Amino acid sequence: MAMASENKSVERVGVIDLGSNTARLVIYHYEPGVHFKLIDQARQRVRLAEGLNDGLQLQPEPIERAIETLNLFRSLCDASGVAEIIAVATSAVRDAQNQADFLRQVKRRARLDLRVLTGDEEAWYGYVGVSNTLDAAEGMLFDLGGGSIEITRVVRRKPAHAVSLPLGVVRMKERHMPALPAGRKQTTALRDEVMAQFAGQEWVSEEAPTGRLIGMGGTARALAKLDQEARKYPLERVHGYVVTAAAIDGLIDQMKGLDLRGLQAMPGMHEDRIDVILPGAIIVRELLRASGYDRFTVSGAGLREGMFFTRFLEGKSSTLIRDVRAFSIENTARQYGAWNPHSQHVRKLALQLFDQLSGVHGYGAWEREILGAASLLHDIGYAISFFDHDTHSQYLILNSDLSAYTHRELAILGLLARYHRKGDIDCEPNCDLLEPGDQQRMAAMAAMLRLAEYLERGRRQSVRELTCNVGAAEIVITARTRGDAAIELWEAGRNTDLMESALGRKVRIVKE
Amino acid sequence: MAMASENKSVERVGVIDLGSNTARLVIYHYEPGVHFKLIDQARQRVRLAEGLNDGLQLQPEPIERAIETLNLFRSLCDASGVAEIIAVATSAVRDAQNQADFLRQVKRRARLDLRVLTGDEEAWYGYVGVSNTLDAAEGMLFDLGGGSIEITRVVRRKPAHAVSLPLGVVRMKERHMPALPAGRKQTTALRDEVMAQFAGQEWVSEEAPTGRLIGMGGTARALAKLDQEARKYPLERVHGYVVTAAAIDGLIDQMKGLDLRGLQAMPGMHEDRIDVILPGAIIVRELLRASGYDRFTVSGAGLREGMFFTRFLEGKSSTLIRDVRAFSIENTARQYGAWNPHSQHVRKLALQLFDQLSGVHGYGAWEREILGAASLLHDIGYAISFFDHDTHSQYLILNSDLSAYTHRELAILGLLARYHRKGDIDCEPNCDLLEPGDQQRMAAMAAMLRLAEYLERGRRQSVRELTCNVGAAEIVITARTRGDAAIELWEAGRNTDLMESALGRKVRIVKE
Repeated sequence: MAMASENKSVERVGVIDLGSNTARLVIYHYEPGVHFKLIDQARQRVRLAEGLNDGLQLQPEPIERAIETLNLFRSLCDASGVAEIIAVATSAVRDAQNQADFLRQVKRRARLDLRVLTGDEEAWYGYVGVSNTLDAAEGMLFDLGGGSIEITRVVRRKPAHAVSLPLGVVRMKERHMPALPAGRKQTTALRDEVMAQFAGQEWVSEEAPTGRLIGMGGTARALAKLDQEARKYPLERVHGYVVTAAAIDGLIDQMKGLDLRGLQAMPGMHEDRIDVILPGAIIVRELLRASGYDRFTVSGAGLREGMFFTRFLEGKSSTLIRDVRAFSIENTARQYGAWNPHSQHVRKLALQLFDQLSGVHGYGAWEREILGAASLLHDIGYAISFFDHDTHSQYLILNSDLSAYTHRELAILGLLARYHRKGDIDCEPNCDLLEPGDQQRMAAMAAMLRLAEYLERGRRQSVRELTCNVGAAEIVITARTRGDAAIELWEAGRNTDLMESALGRKVRIVKE
Repeated sequence: MAMASENKSVERVGVIDLGSNTARLVIYHYEPGVHFKLIDQARQRVRLAEGLNDGLQLQPEPIERAIETLNLFRSLCDASGVAEIIAVATSAVRDAQNQADFLRQVKRRARLDLRVLTGDEEAWYGYVGVSNTLDAAEGMLFDLGGGSIEITRVVRRKPAHAVSLPLGVVRMKERHMPALPAGRKQTTALRDEVMAQFAGQEWVSEEAPTGRLIGMGGTARALAKLDQEARKYPLERVHGYVVTAAAIDGLIDQMKGLDLRGLQAMPGMHEDRIDVILPGAIIVRELLRASGYDRFTVSGAGLREGMFFTRFLEGKSSTLIRDVRAFSIENTARQYGAWNPHSQHVRKLALQLFDQLSGVHGYGAWEREILGAASLLHDIGYAISFFDHDTHSQYLILNSDLSAYTHRELAILGLLARYHRKGDIDCEPNCDLLEPGDQQRMAAMAAMLRLAEYLERGRRQSVRELTCNVGAAEIVITARTRGDAAIELWEAGRNTDLMESALGRKVRIVKE
């Protein structure tokens, strides 16, 4: 808090997204190009597209709901000290013949300049939101909203094709499934329309799937949540979660005979989604079929985040962050006051151990990056309490916005932080997120992180460099020091056991 | 971090406690009289009392271990930017005939002025540590260390009697149980000596027990840890935990036939305690018998904290904090940047609801204080992330230094914070900490907190005062507002359901 008020370059921006189903507001606190933090959000189901199918007119009641909601969002922005509001509207307003009148009313009654995005712009900003928070260098994205779906093919981190089709979940529900449970006839009619629309976009189906399919929007998140509940998934996190075609088939089978109450009773179901989740699931399933992917990765970030990043990175050479993984680690370390010489020095020492011991452990570039990231984050739990700060670091890693890391990687980062001081690695309750060999992999990595941490026990960079001499039975680590390094050598010397067991050799620390 | 470097009045102090068994260092960051935070600690088992029984001479090897450890602690203090080190020694040094020579060596070789506390002083500072972190207004305290036990009778928050007896766990082990498993003869001899010593202090046994018995020191903490493991206790926290006489009897029965390996295998056993835990358990059990208490409450704070508080409160009229509960809430709120007008205003509104609805809910002063405390802490989870900050607030409450609250109270505070925005209260995994009626009690309190929070949604104190009119079927809450309060009235109006179910009436919010 003190930092914020004293730093002149810190700003607050509100981003409002008036969709066909839902209106959303996010408020960010940020230092341009350096770091950011979400500080508030609000959502209200407006159902602006209600009745839009007949004659492409926004109807009076939805208009009133929208303006009331926009007014409330403006009020919340004012209360939060937001200097600038970026407000955009998508499919419903884009397609409405009374668009101009609606925009005038918004201007006059909610004092907001609502920008209507074209389908291409909507796809672009969604892409920016995803590309800055996930590995989306190759593959396909979709953003399924209430009024439309945007589909983007990405090649070498550039959008190669993009299309916006009027296949939103509210529209499809109104046209094909006004009442539930839906009969076979309705389901078939919906599916047929969706298939026909996708078939009209040859590039969707003609090119073989590459990279990943990434899904944005409320339906993608809702499918993830339902699947997680069904599987008793250990993390409370949909961003980065992978939903398979088989899982969607299972959900469709389960949902198609249910009425509203039956749907409402499903674990993980969000109230606002009940009447549109089945059309949504069918649309996503048909997209997988048409595009040839057998799964999709959920992105919690999309259009709103893309609008935000465009502002956050204004003046930079690109609105795409070059290294999203490194950025998210630094952003998180900064958030918890751990972007400091100590954690950077622990990283240096840990990577010296990693590189010089590569002949022993045999791991490569991926493990090296993870070890470096864990080094930078190992102490973030201090922000909670000194006591058990290793446990708190793990909690923060699993609950923070390290958006570019897979859930398996988050589990590993969390466990490395958790065991950076003591103990043998116990992966519960997140063992299901790991892969074969990870236990051994983590033991070696935690051993290097732990030794680096104790060699930097005094947080004063007094152990400058390390040289490892690897023998058949013993590893001798020679520390070049500057000034008093007594506490470092003592603590490192009595904490070699994890490395000894992980690397199968005695370990000795000596002073140069 | 930024706050620290810019605030001239923030200081760092290291407190070293050279005990008969263990040497410990704690480092605090503090603003005198306002708030503090533990930032580092270290411990090393020195066993300074080893061989002291014979001729009251500190032996050469323990002396070397002590000086090496003190040097390391000094090095860690230097590395941490500590301006002042308070170093004290207790029983072993106090009783040693070669004390003066030892102190000269410490001065020369570790550059520390070691202050030898008298038994009375040791008891006093232990009392200060406890009294500032627990409700210890009436009752008895003990601090069982390696060399001695200090016992203090407290009457109206003043020490009425205090004694230091040479019944430390290392001494008793050396005298009576040099090898394990201990035979019946050794156990009886130890028990007889302890009983005789307690019998010599008539005030220990002659007065009927009042208030609580509170236990400090490694043995008290170790007994708590062992009992928690045996019971699968849900919290990772020994401060404030209650150990019954029956539980100690059970542990003694279990331990008395075990050798070192058997003891080591007990869940929750700390390596450094293995050889002294049985003598320790017997001493504590005999103290309960002599004093008439059937349980004791563990204090994680003691001598070191007492030394720290004496410095922290220097210049104040007392080294005892007047209201330790209010202080610990404020200290925690400050630590997470939540000591601000918003949380204070939520508290004001929640207490207005509580007071005006007392005829409906029927709760009293204790619930009122808890509701006020929960109001001040409800948003501390923002320090972790905006997303799920209610869940994070609960995590922080259960893992922070709210030392004066019982574990049941922490569970309630945590649940109130967890459900301050949405959801029905689910007490898992901490249901065992609650008492009958707490579920209903929390529903009413959470309902008031939640409404207060939404009435302060914009964090700008625009809802100034509340007036409740209670009817048989409906509660009408009239809000006096200042400026724009649209978002507050809207959010409060749509979040009345918990109060409606908890208080059995419709709830309507109106603007004055």
